[in-house]
Amino acid sequence: MKDRNEAAPRAVTMRDVAKAAGVSVSTVSHVVNDKKGARIGKDARDRVRQAIQDLGYRPNAMAKNLVKGGSRFLGLVADAIASTPFAGQIIHGAQDEAWRHGYVLLVANTEGNNDAEAEAIAMMLEHKVRGILYSTWYHREVAMPAGLAEADSVLVNCFSAHGRVPAVVPDEVDGGREATRMLLAEGHRRIGLVNTTTASPAHDGRLLGYRQALAEAGIAFDPDLVMDAHPDQEGGYESVGRLLAQRVTGVFCHNDRVAMGLYDGLREKGARVPEDIAVVGFDNQEVIAAHLRPPLSTVALPHYDLGRVGVRVLLGLDEPAADGRVTIACPPVRRASVSTPSSI
Amino acid sequence: MKDRNEAAPRAVTMRDVAKAAGVSVSTVSHVVNDKKGARIGKDARDRVRQAIQDLGYRPNAMAKNLVKGGSRFLGLVADAIASTPFAGQIIHGAQDEAWRHGYVLLVANTEGNNDAEAEAIAMMLEHKVRGILYSTWYHREVAMPAGLAEADSVLVNCFSAHGRVPAVVPDEVDGGREATRMLLAEGHRRIGLVNTTTASPAHDGRLLGYRQALAEAGIAFDPDLVMDAHPDQEGGYESVGRLLAQRVTGVFCHNDRVAMGLYDGLREKGARVPEDIAVVGFDNQEVIAAHLRPPLSTVALPHYDLGRVGVRVLLGLDEPAADGRVTIACPPVRRASVSTPSSI
Repeated sequence: MKDRNEAAPRAVTMRDVAKAAGVSVSTVSHVVNDKKGARIGKDARDRVRQAIQDLGYRPNAMAKNLVKGGSRFLGLVADAIASTPFAGQIIHGAQDEAWRHGYVLLVANTEGNNDAEAEAIAMMLEHKVRGILYSTWYHREVAMPAGLAEADSVLVNCFSAHGRVPAVVPDEVDGGREATRMLLAEGHRRIGLVNTTTASPAHDGRLLGYRQALAEAGIAFDPDLVMDAHPDQEGGYESVGRLLAQRVTGVFCHNDRVAMGLYDGLREKGARVPEDIAVVGFDNQEVIAAHLRPPLSTVALPHYDLGRVGVRVLLGLDEPAADGRVTIACPPVRRASVSTPSSI
Repeated sequence: MKDRNEAAPRAVTMRDVAKAAGVSVSTVSHVVNDKKGARIGKDARDRVRQAIQDLGYRPNAMAKNLVKGGSRFLGLVADAIASTPFAGQIIHGAQDEAWRHGYVLLVANTEGNNDAEAEAIAMMLEHKVRGILYSTWYHREVAMPAGLAEADSVLVNCFSAHGRVPAVVPDEVDGGREATRMLLAEGHRRIGLVNTTTASPAHDGRLLGYRQALAEAGIAFDPDLVMDAHPDQEGGYESVGRLLAQRVTGVFCHNDRVAMGLYDGLREKGARVPEDIAVVGFDNQEVIAAHLRPPLSTVALPHYDLGRVGVRVLLGLDEPAADGRVTIACPPVRRASVSTPSSI
């Protein structure tokens, strides 16, 4: 395996400073920490300072961590904790696991702002974090921010094109299979899929899972039953005409918001859920899924576990697969929107 | 006074960069902050960038803190960042304001667990935080955790009975007035209130605001138009019969979830929003309010500002009133669920 350090710049260490100054690491430590009673000649002291300046070495804000050889911080950069509960669930899982191993999580919220992101990563590097989790609120490919290369890092709910950084991601294909199986188990054979218009791992993975589940059940794939819609309530609402025209008895929706809009559209057409059409969502966004009429069967995105396992990979407790990935299953959540339709 | 810089390596400053590049500090500042409209020649800009790279200058708030010394941490304890976007919005506001003043926010998520809370506060004290924000996801009275007494602290979205700790809270009365005024402005005179069953500042404050707005409009308070319901979709759904029996033309709901359930119940009875009944929510929970059919007029809970002002009070930049409180207004958010009813 290629050494990360060959490819990316790494943080300057106390050892680097010691080497450049021709002194021991403990001499550097004494100079950095202004240790009382340490007998260090002016000459050596000057060389250490010069080396610190030349190399751009950043002394830690918390001196004791330098002495110990590392802080007990882990960093977590999140892009949208103010707009969905998803990032909060990732943080919850990461924090529980970090605390279990004696680490404190430094959380930074960037709301997708590049300057805030750069500042967050710089702040974490200055605090000599043991490593950084970089997380996104929806599963996607990311361009690695430059600063991340200076620390050990793990991507959570996202991945990079080159695949050299470990990534913990939801198993979209598994989720698509589970959602479709819930409908198949109730006897549905003509199952629609309202997918998203956005090219994404969720789009491709859930479609593949839908096709796999149909194949398991010996049902031929019919592309006319698959339609793309904007992944929100309005998208679901606008899909109703096409779904009814295809005489589907069950629909797997890209997410719970789409299902919520679909409910509204079906109601306007006089179609009942689940008697006329069974509906399954995706996300298990509690405030929506559990409180629709009827409550929505769905598939949970495992945000808590993404955060938890992200920390485990960062600390070397879990190993990613050969492709650098750890995938987390998406468990089904059964509620009243799926049942045996009277037509079967 | 001893100059710290004699003893310890110091962070690279903007002044160092200016000196190395042969430009003024303000030129460096403009380049670093990518200031629009600043007229800086390409040559000078290139020299500044080169100097930044050579010196390892990190253009962020932490650099100056290393020079100043002392912990630059603020703590923020939140009780429910995994279940609603509300805590995330408080964190966002607090973090933006903290960074503005060179502080890093240590965020701990307790999900209401007492052990996690005690551990979070202990961790913050260990890191010598400058102070702690203690926040709750809904506005309520709290018993002060023991550890909080050891640090400067500010309560955010909550308050203590004794009132000795500053508290930044939403102005529930103002919110209730704004919600009711939205209905009054469209000519409604018979306005229902679906309040919560939970005794809380939100219950009492919003009711008071409703009464004040009616009084302003010269409308007598009618207790038959006020009903309490569980503050979720099911509570709203179950209130429909009583509201229709009272022949209200407008309803102010305790929150957006209640309004969502009310929509479902009204639809089943063949009542249209807003033609037959206008509806106003509370919270502005985006994923619900903006995507109901029709989109819901509501009142925003100012979570971002609660976090932002919490930091300002902690740092002594804003002063609480004599009672220890800072109240933040709840602004109205107008969407399509309120309009002039045909009956008026």
